[in-house]
Amino acid sequence: MRARSPEAKRRREDAILAAAERLATLNGVREVTVTAIADAVGMHKSAMLRYFETREDIFLRLAARAWKDWSADVCGRLTAMSPRPAPDGQAWERAARSIADLLARSLVIRPLFCDLLAHTPLNLERNVSTETVRAFKRVAIAEAAQISTVLRTVAPIAPGQAHNVVTTATSMAGALWQMAAPGTRLRSFYESDPELSHSIVDVEPRLADLLNALLTGYAAIAARPDHTRGAPNDTA
Amino acid sequence: MRARSPEAKRRREDAILAAAERLATLNGVREVTVTAIADAVGMHKSAMLRYFETREDIFLRLAARAWKDWSADVCGRLTAMSPRPAPDGQAWERAARSIADLLARSLVIRPLFCDLLAHTPLNLERNVSTETVRAFKRVAIAEAAQISTVLRTVAPIAPGQAHNVVTTATSMAGALWQMAAPGTRLRSFYESDPELSHSIVDVEPRLADLLNALLTGYAAIAARPDHTRGAPNDTA
Repeated sequence: MRARSPEAKRRREDAILAAAERLATLNGVREVTVTAIADAVGMHKSAMLRYFETREDIFLRLAARAWKDWSADVCGRLTAMSPRPAPDGQAWERAARSIADLLARSLVIRPLFCDLLAHTPLNLERNVSTETVRAFKRVAIAEAAQISTVLRTVAPIAPGQAHNVVTTATSMAGALWQMAAPGTRLRSFYESDPELSHSIVDVEPRLADLLNALLTGYAAIAARPDHTRGAPNDTA
Repeated sequence: MRARSPEAKRRREDAILAAAERLATLNGVREVTVTAIADAVGMHKSAMLRYFETREDIFLRLAARAWKDWSADVCGRLTAMSPRPAPDGQAWERAARSIADLLARSLVIRPLFCDLLAHTPLNLERNVSTETVRAFKRVAIAEAAQISTVLRTVAPIAPGQAHNVVTTATSMAGALWQMAAPGTRLRSFYESDPELSHSIVDVEPRLADLLNALLTGYAAIAARPDHTRGAPNDTA
């Protein structure tokens, strides 16, 4: 049955996105087909594809929502922290640790976002119209820029450095999650092999550890006398 | 025609791997099908699948070779550097920059390896037997451990930190390469849009910058008086 009003159309779109979100959370993005989403929402596949171009379109829409949700959470938490300390004292050591923990935690509690982050550049940006990719990229770029700006209110690092911290946080969350997603057959297989089980990644502490080192290193580099380009107070 | 001797079988396998390597270098791992590889090597698909289980089996074999090739190159170059300096002087600042440049450069000159690094956990470890995944993982784990060991002869960092540098280098090379692979339709599309073209990543300088910060941060953390677990001279 075709939705008739804009309101009915939006409700139908929301129902499709909610079904895709449930299935992807349960089984992983990779396993979810258009047919499964249509079945879950009680529509024919052809009718559903009047609302979204492709499977990838549906997941890019979910990824854009997830970026906004994560960004709002992280920006709120960063804003609640103390203003940025000098880069050479114990106050900054503690702050760097807190920021790293906050970023890692906020990503790990969003397993679907981690899954989407890995799939977006590899698989999801390739079977949709350029308009759909453009709409998604604009959201992701704007939210990453927003987080970078807020990050610099609590960390003594330059704009480009803050941007790299955000890119590394999201890319490594995606990569580490794929290597170790709990409940997957791959994870069970690693756990069953004494030689491979050593290399299982616990995503949250691993991610927090490397983001702490990255923040520490960037602050040390930004504080060097010769660090002229992109210094912490550079607003470029 | 079925290869009859072990020697003939190995030659046939090498020809299949070489064809897959050429096609993947040209078109990207994602686009290469079993049929295209079979066509390129002049075999029927069913005959080729007597040598390899699946498409993923072929690419995991190429990924294992690429890990060995990259590891030999990096370990050779690291071994040629000066022994590790103290973590608080300009000698270490210069060394960290050199190591970061070396790691970034060695990855970027291997675009197929970068492509494989992103595809391995997402797509390539999922459609093959556990024995094939095990064989690949053992190679990747052993080579990463070897690079970590050699890295610690030139950088004042702890074993776990060296391991994280290697994991971050390979994961970020894969992620950044996917976002910006030169010559792809996605890259052309980004370049055509003024709003998106700002966010195009130049993989090598970006990767070198973040690895330099990561090495700098880990060395600073390892040098702290309270860094007892996994200190630089800890051989665990």
